[in-house]
Amino acid sequence: MFENMETPRLILDRGRLIKNSRLFMERAKELGVKLRPHLKTPKSVEVGKIAKDGDMTGITVSTLKEAEYFANNGFSNIMLAAAITPNKFARVKRIFEASGQQIILATDSLWVANEAVSYATANDCDLAFVIEVDCGEHRSGLPYDSTELIEIAQVLSAGDRTHFKGIMTHGGHSYLAGERSEVVKVAESERHAVTHAAKRLSDLGIECEIVSVGSSPTVLWAEHLDGVTEARAGVYLFWDLMQYALNVCELDDIAVSVLATVIGHNRGAKTIVIDAGALAISKDIGANKNLPDAKYGYVCDASTLERIGTLSVDAVYQEHGIIPVDDDAMFELLPIGSMVRILPNHTCITAAPYDSYTVIEGDKIIGEWSRIGGW
Amino acid sequence: MFENMETPRLILDRGRLIKNSRLFMERAKELGVKLRPHLKTPKSVEVGKIAKDGDMTGITVSTLKEAEYFANNGFSNIMLAAAITPNKFARVKRIFEASGQQIILATDSLWVANEAVSYATANDCDLAFVIEVDCGEHRSGLPYDSTELIEIAQVLSAGDRTHFKGIMTHGGHSYLAGERSEVVKVAESERHAVTHAAKRLSDLGIECEIVSVGSSPTVLWAEHLDGVTEARAGVYLFWDLMQYALNVCELDDIAVSVLATVIGHNRGAKTIVIDAGALAISKDIGANKNLPDAKYGYVCDASTLERIGTLSVDAVYQEHGIIPVDDDAMFELLPIGSMVRILPNHTCITAAPYDSYTVIEGDKIIGEWSRIGGW
Repeated sequence: MFENMETPRLILDRGRLIKNSRLFMERAKELGVKLRPHLKTPKSVEVGKIAKDGDMTGITVSTLKEAEYFANNGFSNIMLAAAITPNKFARVKRIFEASGQQIILATDSLWVANEAVSYATANDCDLAFVIEVDCGEHRSGLPYDSTELIEIAQVLSAGDRTHFKGIMTHGGHSYLAGERSEVVKVAESERHAVTHAAKRLSDLGIECEIVSVGSSPTVLWAEHLDGVTEARAGVYLFWDLMQYALNVCELDDIAVSVLATVIGHNRGAKTIVIDAGALAISKDIGANKNLPDAKYGYVCDASTLERIGTLSVDAVYQEHGIIPVDDDAMFELLPIGSMVRILPNHTCITAAPYDSYTVIEGDKIIGEWSRIGGW
Repeated sequence: MFENMETPRLILDRGRLIKNSRLFMERAKELGVKLRPHLKTPKSVEVGKIAKDGDMTGITVSTLKEAEYFANNGFSNIMLAAAITPNKFARVKRIFEASGQQIILATDSLWVANEAVSYATANDCDLAFVIEVDCGEHRSGLPYDSTELIEIAQVLSAGDRTHFKGIMTHGGHSYLAGERSEVVKVAESERHAVTHAAKRLSDLGIECEIVSVGSSPTVLWAEHLDGVTEARAGVYLFWDLMQYALNVCELDDIAVSVLATVIGHNRGAKTIVIDAGALAISKDIGANKNLPDAKYGYVCDASTLERIGTLSVDAVYQEHGIIPVDDDAMFELLPIGSMVRILPNHTCITAAPYDSYTVIEGDKIIGEWSRIGGW
């Protein structure tokens, strides 16, 4: 189906994307929360529209460039989940002026909250915030029982032009979990952290409109989300080998793959060379902890996306990928000029350098969807 | 000097770039070869112009997108050093039609050579080739003593519209060398492979206009390049921690760094969080083999680019970088909102997602230079 197409190329299976999207819409409904898809993974308006079946309200992003792109393309209620700093306030203001969208910012810093109050007043603009709390990943966010949490909420609530919206956390340590029971515990730690933080503020008369948790594994396997208003997750839209290694998805749920061409045979070294390397697949090897044969990605049939034997991409150079083969018959099966597809370790990182997706439905190419990158 | 700039941002020190460029121009002169800079590292017209002090003839690229970009911007004699396959011939033809530039393609495949002859005739276009030989890296290329080498040269020479230009190799295993004497050996293996291949063809009456070797370490340390016509190298333009770890450059030769903002303090975990992570710095950890404290990159003062204590970026998430600090004084030295610069492991990969360089000269910002990415 890809005959004579130029490679490397990012392929998106629309049917799988729709199936994954529906799974999480249903999960959110079961859990009684709103779904706020994290569009840092797809970075695409077309994918964002599918994520909630046409509903373009309530999304998460990781950069202001993504916020700007989605705001300018009709999305609303956009949360930037990485902590903001004052050098980025001016762009937040510009996004509002251009699109009318008030991006919901995240902070865990009293200094930033005070700067926001000053900036908003001095620059005649509004700034909306959630406070990030740490639920055990220890990457970012305040302890839910910290004094600073209350101080930040008070500062933001008191500001004429700052708007306190609520509490968020990210249980990213669910990616390190070995089994489902551990993910369930992380999900409960997310819920516990945000609901306790919200309760402390509520006791002081500060209400949280947003009480937000999420990572794909925890949203999928949380036992309940009582007291939470919304769930954020992103990689579930596409899945990848890292999530497969966590048993959160099946191989045939993975919606994104890299189409590559066999550009060389090295019969002496018993390797096949493809034109997808460190830039086209990425150097992420996150899946290997639980799936040691993932290497830089599974090598699959270009049409069926079934893995070819036990082939993986074993080494990557900037534009070369190396596939060891233990059977000379593979050179006949995969002649120079033939194509393969690579299932990625970590879709968010693999997809990053591409300008677009080549979208397939069944065995047909149905379009090219643009996506953004950079900052 | 970067006050209130948005981050992450790629910073290029023009003075260092010029110094690095001159070093290799002088090296090539000493070795009696032409220099064919590999512009897969900078992917920028402005940098490409500096690489040979205004001479825009004779460059190397790794993708057809780079070839197209440089051809459309006045560069000529462009070699695409990654093996071509027939699905890319149409774009080679389009590049010629748009720019008048005949991209020099690489192959190590008799099948591709035959396809090229057919395509060129059927499509009324010309295709120029070098043959890639393997000098010991065992990534790609034919053994210099192989029969197929001669067959390919004969096929390409016999084609009415195909043009055989010569031989090339890449001693990429110089990056694995532990010390200078090993790099010297790799340099000699490059020279040996291409000159012997060229001699075999010359004995059959097939002359090689191009006899090409190169990697930054081997060009720097080769004892001589007798019989070679040109040297290809790229990372020397910018250098990085991997090259520093090989003792090929000094820290203050590294011309590219990532400007990042401190976005969080995690006093419990004793970490500082910055807004440069897996996308802004890359997941390349290639320098760590010889420089174990490189981690994802050295953390440096934003103004001076001097390393701050022994700080490194220890972990990366999509848009977060984590810097462990063993001294609480670091939280005072690097408050939230302050900036740092990160020296990268592998510049070629780190630079890839950026649309532009913020160019500095001494302590002044002198411009923003665009660069390309993707395919």
